[in-house]
Amino acid sequence: MDRIRLGVVGLGRGFMLTLPALTGDERIVLAGAFDPRAEARERFAQEFDALAFPTLGAMLGAPDIDALYIASPHEHHAAQAIAAIKAGKHVLVEKPMAVTVADCAAMAEAARRFDRVLVVGPSHGFDAPVRAAAALIASGDHGALRQILTFNFTDFVYRPRRPEELDAARGGGVIFSQGAHQIDVVRRLAGQPIRTVRAVAGNWDETRPNDGAYTALLAFEHGAAASLTYSGYAHYDSDELTGWIGELGRPKAPTAHADARRTLARDEAAAKLARTYGNGAPPPPAPHHEHFGFVLASCERADIRLTPTGLALYADHAHEWRPLDPPAVPRRAVIDEFVAAIHRTSAPIHDGRWGLETMAACAALIESSRRGTDIFPATIIHDALEQIAL
Amino acid sequence: MDRIRLGVVGLGRGFMLTLPALTGDERIVLAGAFDPRAEARERFAQEFDALAFPTLGAMLGAPDIDALYIASPHEHHAAQAIAAIKAGKHVLVEKPMAVTVADCAAMAEAARRFDRVLVVGPSHGFDAPVRAAAALIASGDHGALRQILTFNFTDFVYRPRRPEELDAARGGGVIFSQGAHQIDVVRRLAGQPIRTVRAVAGNWDETRPNDGAYTALLAFEHGAAASLTYSGYAHYDSDELTGWIGELGRPKAPTAHADARRTLARDEAAAKLARTYGNGAPPPPAPHHEHFGFVLASCERADIRLTPTGLALYADHAHEWRPLDPPAVPRRAVIDEFVAAIHRTSAPIHDGRWGLETMAACAALIESSRRGTDIFPATIIHDALEQIAL
Repeated sequence: MDRIRLGVVGLGRGFMLTLPALTGDERIVLAGAFDPRAEARERFAQEFDALAFPTLGAMLGAPDIDALYIASPHEHHAAQAIAAIKAGKHVLVEKPMAVTVADCAAMAEAARRFDRVLVVGPSHGFDAPVRAAAALIASGDHGALRQILTFNFTDFVYRPRRPEELDAARGGGVIFSQGAHQIDVVRRLAGQPIRTVRAVAGNWDETRPNDGAYTALLAFEHGAAASLTYSGYAHYDSDELTGWIGELGRPKAPTAHADARRTLARDEAAAKLARTYGNGAPPPPAPHHEHFGFVLASCERADIRLTPTGLALYADHAHEWRPLDPPAVPRRAVIDEFVAAIHRTSAPIHDGRWGLETMAACAALIESSRRGTDIFPATIIHDALEQIAL
Repeated sequence: MDRIRLGVVGLGRGFMLTLPALTGDERIVLAGAFDPRAEARERFAQEFDALAFPTLGAMLGAPDIDALYIASPHEHHAAQAIAAIKAGKHVLVEKPMAVTVADCAAMAEAARRFDRVLVVGPSHGFDAPVRAAAALIASGDHGALRQILTFNFTDFVYRPRRPEELDAARGGGVIFSQGAHQIDVVRRLAGQPIRTVRAVAGNWDETRPNDGAYTALLAFEHGAAASLTYSGYAHYDSDELTGWIGELGRPKAPTAHADARRTLARDEAAAKLARTYGNGAPPPPAPHHEHFGFVLASCERADIRLTPTGLALYADHAHEWRPLDPPAVPRRAVIDEFVAAIHRTSAPIHDGRWGLETMAACAALIESSRRGTDIFPATIIHDALEQIAL
């Protein structure tokens, strides 16, 4: 099959993390890039023998761009994705899919109406341990899935940020950025729609004014439940429970959280820029799988603990360790899903509808915390779909 | 002050676990016992130079019994406690306080009306790490408490049981027996009333038909939230996360869960009896504190992890390990609270009202799971108090 000629929108941190998956994949050609930083797009053009587009419109008009990978600031995702879809391009968009449920609904509907592929990722729902556990659960060998416990205690709040990343109205805060991962993970494992979301979110540091923590209970349609807890306040580090392997699959120091706060006290804008394309090398290959903290799935006859190196299976009469081969190329599963969808060899799991449902769950989490009651994501989705004007 | 002459009601497993605290305490005299097993009460009389009562009525009529420790099957707690209070005795009653909220309300009201001490314990709310963390939180040094994450994965469902312990209507199931511990722990840490309970409970093994797992989100009156998860299905063992120190403060084998299921397959009634007084020695002294699984409390400026050997404090700029002295006598805090209340030197924390509130939270958990919505424990308490007929 023909290689897919991919245009990149936004040469920031997201692109840097996915770059090894793109360059390591024989099915993809990095054909062009758009970024407001001229030096970044020129460097990209040179490094990959590709085109540098000064505007998104120019890239959308280029006939030899088949698909776009949108890794721009969150608030631009919707307009860029819809424009790309209308221009006939397939789209891989970073999470969070967009900053409002209405935008996500419009994106999903655009993909449907114009028959283009829309995949939302990467997210930790694509991690190899999650996919392996989801397959094990779906097999039914250990009875129905009944309960998921997951939590992640990170330094997210004190990572370098652009101002809009601290603004919930523009897609900031941990619920859209980090909750979306956790929700993707539990949705993959549960394999059933979310019925209700009950949550309490927390904004604990006035110097970083946004939701930085939450705890939530999700009840699924077919009886399963999931407990999700997150704190980005750089106190406890739950990577202690995954053998000090960090989120991206690399060994990590137990002092990392305290360091995050110290480092941030210096120049935040410069630190943020240093993580983008053209400023420093992409991260080295990771020896272990990416993960999103502690995840334990309880089926009727076994618990399954997900780790960056494999699955621990605690069944009625035997415990079993099921190692997973180390990742050859990180995030390859995302490209697999995108490419297969474009070639129509298999329908994507993380399509526009999936992204919309995860976004609605994030919105339900915020709304539940605000109103102090259960929120039904299906109602949020229904209302958003009714109001679409493409 | 005079030593308190204590009568024991029920020489079962609960008594065995508390016996070291009673015999090791100079403020207590084991003065008598009632148990339907004649050989147990005769043995008790001989071992402690005490009285063996053939009926509870006989013990209640004995003028030289000051107080009762009620450790009988749960369904008898209410009637026995109320009879004891009416007979002028102070009461220490094992958790669960009783099997219905109405019974708990009647017990609390009886204690109030007849001005007798009623303490509900032991429970893991008395554990030294919980008391130390509660004091640290109450100091306000690290800002307000905002979030608690706690979970415990045990072999509870496969421990030897009498038939009524498998019957929710008679106080069986993990929510009354184990949820009460977890709720006591988070209430002690939060130091504020529970506003709402949202939960999903699970009954996953038809051979042990009762709730054996749950996950719950508690929202407190002043903004804090707690995530509670429990499974007694003997799959994953969360003592892995506390250095393989078991609930009672002793080292434990990683294979214990698988063993519980195997052992149970033999004679359950005999196994249950073997854990009662007169059948085997009481447990040896524990080198570490008792605990109830993983507990992490998040204040605005620090997370506090509770462990059987001390508190790990993860603050903004420093991590600190605060060891706790090993327990001299286990469960001494329960006796401290009971004795201080009887001598009127300090009011008990875990009094009838406390027990009623924990029981109402357990009932709310069950009701929330049944109805799929938030339940307000205060409403349950209000209704129960309105219907008291002592």
